[in-house]
Amino acid sequence: MKLTILGCFSASPSKDRFPTAQILEIGGTNILIDCGEGTQIQLRRCGIKFNSIEHVFISHLHGDHFFGLPGLISTFRLLGRTKPLNIYGPIGIKKAITLLLKLGNSWTNYDLIFNELEDSESVKLLDKKNFSVHSIPLNHRVYTNGFLFKEINLESKLLIDVALRLGIDKTQFSGIKIGKDGITNEGKTIDNFKLTEPKSKDITYAYCSDTSFYPQIIDLIKNCDVLYHESTFLDSHSDLAEKTKHSTAKQAAEIAKLADVKKLILGHFSSRYKNLNDFQSQAKEIFNNVELAYDGKVFNF
Amino acid sequence: MKLTILGCFSASPSKDRFPTAQILEIGGTNILIDCGEGTQIQLRRCGIKFNSIEHVFISHLHGDHFFGLPGLISTFRLLGRTKPLNIYGPIGIKKAITLLLKLGNSWTNYDLIFNELEDSESVKLLDKKNFSVHSIPLNHRVYTNGFLFKEINLESKLLIDVALRLGIDKTQFSGIKIGKDGITNEGKTIDNFKLTEPKSKDITYAYCSDTSFYPQIIDLIKNCDVLYHESTFLDSHSDLAEKTKHSTAKQAAEIAKLADVKKLILGHFSSRYKNLNDFQSQAKEIFNNVELAYDGKVFNF
Repeated sequence: MKLTILGCFSASPSKDRFPTAQILEIGGTNILIDCGEGTQIQLRRCGIKFNSIEHVFISHLHGDHFFGLPGLISTFRLLGRTKPLNIYGPIGIKKAITLLLKLGNSWTNYDLIFNELEDSESVKLLDKKNFSVHSIPLNHRVYTNGFLFKEINLESKLLIDVALRLGIDKTQFSGIKIGKDGITNEGKTIDNFKLTEPKSKDITYAYCSDTSFYPQIIDLIKNCDVLYHESTFLDSHSDLAEKTKHSTAKQAAEIAKLADVKKLILGHFSSRYKNLNDFQSQAKEIFNNVELAYDGKVFNF
Repeated sequence: MKLTILGCFSASPSKDRFPTAQILEIGGTNILIDCGEGTQIQLRRCGIKFNSIEHVFISHLHGDHFFGLPGLISTFRLLGRTKPLNIYGPIGIKKAITLLLKLGNSWTNYDLIFNELEDSESVKLLDKKNFSVHSIPLNHRVYTNGFLFKEINLESKLLIDVALRLGIDKTQFSGIKIGKDGITNEGKTIDNFKLTEPKSKDITYAYCSDTSFYPQIIDLIKNCDVLYHESTFLDSHSDLAEKTKHSTAKQAAEIAKLADVKKLILGHFSSRYKNLNDFQSQAKEIFNNVELAYDGKVFNF
């Protein structure tokens, strides 16, 4: 997977701090996760092709996660998009987008496929051959979901030298990668496990923003490879975190530790903080492998 | 008046081309005219204090003139605004904003005062002591108004030397500026016209975007000091202008000439044009005093 952070700040956009939006490249497609105001600007800055986006997942309907979507939908139309756009978000999102398009008499000439969410339990949202998406119900001031993305590794790695040495023709290679046995030039069958390395493990990415400290998500994100968890506040503002149902850097790290994830990425920083280093140092007191998001940053995993 | 161009391009925002928004400083207050996505970013870039904005005029409900408003309203709330915000725009604007705030459970703690427009004739929208605003019905794909702003010069310029020489006390000066006669130390009355220069003329600014070539507006904007007129296209795309109900640079200049305005500002450029100089040269074939808008440009008049 390749994760591009388009914006990782809370609340309002400014010249150099954009609200939440991310592009996740998974299973050969691009998924947009949240869409704060100005997402279009950041897509251009980061060189993401607009037409590569097939799915949009909106965590909740606060403006800093959602107010860029109407404009993006209009831009897709102006760019001549024809393929459908799949939108997953809280119930109400269809009514809002539909009203805005109606008022502007700006119906899209491509299909908008809305998948409105209202479950309080995790549900499977997308089930493709090589990746899946589940919701992660969070605890915020309005109905909010995080999302768990799993890339399923379908192919084994072929041991090319072994196959060629045994006299197996190249035309069989794609079949062997997905589990077929090989046949030598002499017609002898070679077991698949002798021609391949074991499949590498599936990769999981959990996106959790916005939420208070909420250990109920632990089972859903257990052992995941990368966890993006919001950390709007530092320890000095833990009272504000509680009041606004956000998390501190330490609370995000506590979730990462309890879920035993491999890596934690922190984001959704309040714009009151000019220097973000304390987010990392406070989180590291609890969980070691932590990185800070910044607008434009790319993570490969 | 002081006009700050926050954005002057049509359609989608990009890193260095923002959709339509302007700040007009008039009669001691700031008015926001249209509010495309990213207006907040441009307000910060141009050093406009958010709390200085008292009125917002939205010409029509296409995204490039409107999709920045929900986020701006949210930011006002986050910044602790208490004074009301007056919003003037096409009927439907209240429903749209209200729905978005409701979905995010983000009601403002200041009053939003909506003034929804649906007249096809020009109406007076605001009538203050020292300025007024009228609508200018335009001809676009959806219901659209331009706006005519008039700053009324209430005070005459006091001839201080004359007043002091005649023995008129300083305490009378503010009264003389608004038309009262002066009384000398000896009790003699001096006519106001002997103590002041004639009042300077009222200043008018007409904002006309988006519209096809529409001479029906001429009477409304006749002799105005500054006309901002959209010019989405160059002559080479006059077919597109007709089809999309926009104007070319030459058509904007024709309107300026017919209305006998003092200065024409062109804006709302299609992003297909990399070099904008042709807009000026094509307009100058018809009307000489023409300037191009650009994001961040300030006009004083």
